[in-house]
Amino acid sequence: MVGLGLIMMMIMKFFRVGVAPFILLLLFLLCSIDSSSVLQVQGRVLSISTKPDPNDAAATARWLLSFNFWGVLNTISTDLGGAPFGNVVSYSDGLPNQGSGIPYFYLTTLDPTARNALKDERASFTVSEYPLGTCGNVDPENPTCSKISLTGKLKLVDEKSKEFEFARNALFSKHLEMMDWPVGHNFQVFKLEIENIFLIDWFGGPKQLTVEQYLDFKMNKNGFIL
Amino acid sequence: MVGLGLIMMMIMKFFRVGVAPFILLLLFLLCSIDSSSVLQVQGRVLSISTKPDPNDAAATARWLLSFNFWGVLNTISTDLGGAPFGNVVSYSDGLPNQGSGIPYFYLTTLDPTARNALKDERASFTVSEYPLGTCGNVDPENPTCSKISLTGKLKLVDEKSKEFEFARNALFSKHLEMMDWPVGHNFQVFKLEIENIFLIDWFGGPKQLTVEQYLDFKMNKNGFIL
Repeated sequence: MVGLGLIMMMIMKFFRVGVAPFILLLLFLLCSIDSSSVLQVQGRVLSISTKPDPNDAAATARWLLSFNFWGVLNTISTDLGGAPFGNVVSYSDGLPNQGSGIPYFYLTTLDPTARNALKDERASFTVSEYPLGTCGNVDPENPTCSKISLTGKLKLVDEKSKEFEFARNALFSKHLEMMDWPVGHNFQVFKLEIENIFLIDWFGGPKQLTVEQYLDFKMNKNGFIL
Repeated sequence: MVGLGLIMMMIMKFFRVGVAPFILLLLFLLCSIDSSSVLQVQGRVLSISTKPDPNDAAATARWLLSFNFWGVLNTISTDLGGAPFGNVVSYSDGLPNQGSGIPYFYLTTLDPTARNALKDERASFTVSEYPLGTCGNVDPENPTCSKISLTGKLKLVDEKSKEFEFARNALFSKHLEMMDWPVGHNFQVFKLEIENIFLIDWFGGPKQLTVEQYLDFKMNKNGFIL
């Protein structure tokens, strides 16, 4: 810090400028950081550590689930003749940096997605890397911008189970406003029991990745514990 | 401009500073604009004009389709026992500020989505307002952060039709890299023939919005022509 101060004073003297350029530079740097490497959900800052090597499919998939916080949950719509119905939802797979890989949701039957799932559990959940800001200057459909679709069964989590406590903490810690959502709407915790994984994170088609490889991946591998 | 130059010179003289603070201020302002009101897809800047009144369902829906550029396209997966399969895709509904409301896609049968659609046309397309940055400090699942799911049939657009030219121009003008995607992958233009609209843009459940109201909406209403 002393070194930085000295350099700053030398620049001020040499160019005969005040502290204004330094304050503006600081603001500019803060602004750049905001749009590139830090995400904020209602005031809580999530740092995005190094994106895993695309060859490590399990790491990439778990990183994507851990650092994103919303996606599209797809169910079979009984109201619309069995059409696939996608819905924007928030999710969490665990406390910060302790993700389980299993996405949990907070849904109400006032919304078609929960109603559909209670009639037909078949579902998929799709998440894109694009909103994380780590794709660089490529299109959201470019294969180097990761995307994952987890297919399986969308199930209600029993309110008396230990998993319910885990899931609720996971959701409320990542989405602060959820704890204030209207009690009368009867929000319930759902989870996706994953049966199949479709991951694109580079050229050459979907990655080979089993559910076991995905779930067994340890979060402290590849340095993405913060 | 002359007035601005004079003010700048007076500040430079009074505070004994050079042009550096002004350059940094300009960078900072550009940076601020980038993260709040302008979206960039590969170099083309899309300005987001005023978000429509949530009470105007047709305007909100068409605004969302016009200003976003990616979403999740959902089909019925024959490979996965009829499960709904979501996939991240780029889209366009028209040339900039001339959107038709009909989303067009550029897909290859190397990807399951196009293969699924050729076997079973039932599909939905889901877009969130969240990545536009206009939701404020609310959760992506908060009803004031708009989301739309268009349900219908995903159809191949005939390469000899006028619609094909329109759709290709719409796609290539919004997603510059598409024109360089590998010829050998045999990308084709698809469109969603909309049969039902699910729009949430405020509290109180989905908006009443017919396909006719949505398609008939004129882009120069509510001041969102730029």
